[in-house]
Amino acid sequence: MPDSLPRADGARVLADLNALRAIGAYKTGVHKPTFSEPHRQSLQWLAQKLPDAGLSATIDGIGNVIGTSTKPGPKLLAGSHLESQNYAGWLDGPLGVVYALEAARVLNAEPSFKGAVEVASWCDEEGHFGSFLGSRSYIGQVTEADIDAARDRTSGRSMRDALVEMGLAGRPRIAVEPGRHVGYLEAHIEQGDTLESGKLAIGIVTSIVGIWQYRISFAGEQNHAGTTRMAVRKDAGLALAKFCVAIDARFPAACGPRTVWTTGRITLDPGAPSIIPGGGEMLFQIRDDDPAVIARLETLLRTMADEVNAKGPCTVTVEKIRTGAPAMMNSSFQDAIEAASKTVAGGRSVRIPSGAGHDAQMLATVMPAGMLFVPSIGGISHHWTENTADADIVTGAQVFVDACRRILSG
Amino acid sequence: MPDSLPRADGARVLADLNALRAIGAYKTGVHKPTFSEPHRQSLQWLAQKLPDAGLSATIDGIGNVIGTSTKPGPKLLAGSHLESQNYAGWLDGPLGVVYALEAARVLNAEPSFKGAVEVASWCDEEGHFGSFLGSRSYIGQVTEADIDAARDRTSGRSMRDALVEMGLAGRPRIAVEPGRHVGYLEAHIEQGDTLESGKLAIGIVTSIVGIWQYRISFAGEQNHAGTTRMAVRKDAGLALAKFCVAIDARFPAACGPRTVWTTGRITLDPGAPSIIPGGGEMLFQIRDDDPAVIARLETLLRTMADEVNAKGPCTVTVEKIRTGAPAMMNSSFQDAIEAASKTVAGGRSVRIPSGAGHDAQMLATVMPAGMLFVPSIGGISHHWTENTADADIVTGAQVFVDACRRILSG
Repeated sequence: MPDSLPRADGARVLADLNALRAIGAYKTGVHKPTFSEPHRQSLQWLAQKLPDAGLSATIDGIGNVIGTSTKPGPKLLAGSHLESQNYAGWLDGPLGVVYALEAARVLNAEPSFKGAVEVASWCDEEGHFGSFLGSRSYIGQVTEADIDAARDRTSGRSMRDALVEMGLAGRPRIAVEPGRHVGYLEAHIEQGDTLESGKLAIGIVTSIVGIWQYRISFAGEQNHAGTTRMAVRKDAGLALAKFCVAIDARFPAACGPRTVWTTGRITLDPGAPSIIPGGGEMLFQIRDDDPAVIARLETLLRTMADEVNAKGPCTVTVEKIRTGAPAMMNSSFQDAIEAASKTVAGGRSVRIPSGAGHDAQMLATVMPAGMLFVPSIGGISHHWTENTADADIVTGAQVFVDACRRILSG
Repeated sequence: MPDSLPRADGARVLADLNALRAIGAYKTGVHKPTFSEPHRQSLQWLAQKLPDAGLSATIDGIGNVIGTSTKPGPKLLAGSHLESQNYAGWLDGPLGVVYALEAARVLNAEPSFKGAVEVASWCDEEGHFGSFLGSRSYIGQVTEADIDAARDRTSGRSMRDALVEMGLAGRPRIAVEPGRHVGYLEAHIEQGDTLESGKLAIGIVTSIVGIWQYRISFAGEQNHAGTTRMAVRKDAGLALAKFCVAIDARFPAACGPRTVWTTGRITLDPGAPSIIPGGGEMLFQIRDDDPAVIARLETLLRTMADEVNAKGPCTVTVEKIRTGAPAMMNSSFQDAIEAASKTVAGGRSVRIPSGAGHDAQMLATVMPAGMLFVPSIGGISHHWTENTADADIVTGAQVFVDACRRILSG
């Protein structure tokens, strides 16, 4: 491969990322939920940019943006997502989309280079309406009935209504074309502090941990908060709080070295100050890349629920609502990223697992997949203060473009 | 007083209560939030009924319905409220309004009887928009700024908008007229199981407990639920759960014999399954009729918060948002209810404090006040399964009318 091949244009990458940040800006981050107006504008922005990279743009019936090339030779799919968590960071998603766009601009226009980068923006990676609906649609795991049932977790708006408002209702959904791509490459902010604390520029992802999610529901007896004596209460909220504390006390003895678990949402029913809660619900998740660890923790969780039910006064049910097998990243892709890092980033890289879920774990079930991380300042993520130094963003883009070139030249 | 004086018409009372139940019916109860359409219809229903009792009806600028009499002689104010908690019972409120209406129908039309019952339906006793806004407005404790700030706790709709939609915006608010009334009498379901378990018909309320309410807010660090190691987390939701459990463990040693405390609502911020909560808030209340007990518990609560702040990793603040002094019921009114109970209910009564708040506690600050309870089946309250046996409803009406007659004849 000729040394004269153009490299990533760092200024262009930063300009694109800042253009996307300006759409739905919130403080130094963005508020760009799936199928919001800023999200719609961001998809349009990308669709208008793709022709600059020699790609034909399509926004499909689930909000995926796909740029396809007619250039001969091998094709590498690359991308990430454009929507954000509520009031969250500007790079979580857009970084990977703009890197893919930049790789396509650099490589596709080069007549001496055989092959092309095709760009994807997967819809709803952040799970406003479901779980990886865009990338799962692309790999054939989302039915029309799934879309019928999907609702915005914040507003309750149905996905069908949202698709109508986005002008996407009735469009076909684009599906993976077996054999078309040599693989899938995605860049993302690390969302942890491993790279920053190690003064490293690049994380080479080895695996993406699985996410197991549970709805844990408590049933007590709704009653008046003034007239019901303490001794006869069946307070579902108190039962829920005790369960949270018991998890905190008992999980450490059964977990693995990298296991994490989180109660992200608690709701009490009816949730009024003068009513003893008759019901309570917590969304609980466990992440690990070792299914044996998960199995052990799930058994413990169910044992703890049995103990609550045996003792009373409230009852609890544990319902598994998401099972996520860990995804292994392709070793040749890891090698390509490492070689690129040596060439353009002084080899300041490390191989690490991803604690966060990414669309790459869905793509990995149908083609070779790889991921590259750039540092997150302070490890902060899913908050509007999320950030990465401009120099690290530019370095990451250089490594990404070079890794794409190596994979396509492979 | 002549023995021939008409008594309460039990069938008429039951018919009126069932008419109100049909407006906004939900299963065997009602869903009649303040300023909902069923609430509006219920206020209209009452306003149309009041002339049958010789009363002029006014719906005022905060949604109170007041029926006034021009009959000479002493006047007793009586009533309760017509809105309900969400998806709650049919008698909580309407029972006291219909008893007052019935007493007015029976006594006001009797030329030989000197004096009159005037009827009030206080708006928003159930606290959708605030705390006893209707009765507090009547006693002069609600400012226009309070109304500007009030919002529906469920929908967020402003009270100003609601008043416009109800057709009440701009109407004057009726205020207490000092010296007009000999006092205020209110009937209500017990909302506990003291009467039922004692096979009693009537509760003579001695006091209404005070309600102290607190907003307890936790601050941690919002972060990604997959990439943030357990050891470095500052999980505000977990801190909140631990605080609930600590209250449950430590309050019993400091409380009084009848103290109750409740965490009715918990919210986590941002409340997403894959985000470690950076904030958490619980609405916590304590009820007792002894301010010394409350003071002791509040001190304990603040000590516990100090301990959390000293230990970390999250911080907590305790903000008192409601201070409720207990209200003592007038002893002559208690005697009148007891005498009425002996005359028409075989004396199956008991003197008890009210653990629930009622409009009577507001009226008690400006005039003598009394309350009468009827039994609640299974002690159930603030739920659509709330109920009272028809026979107990009729007995209660007889006692209420007779107690009104005794107070006015005082």
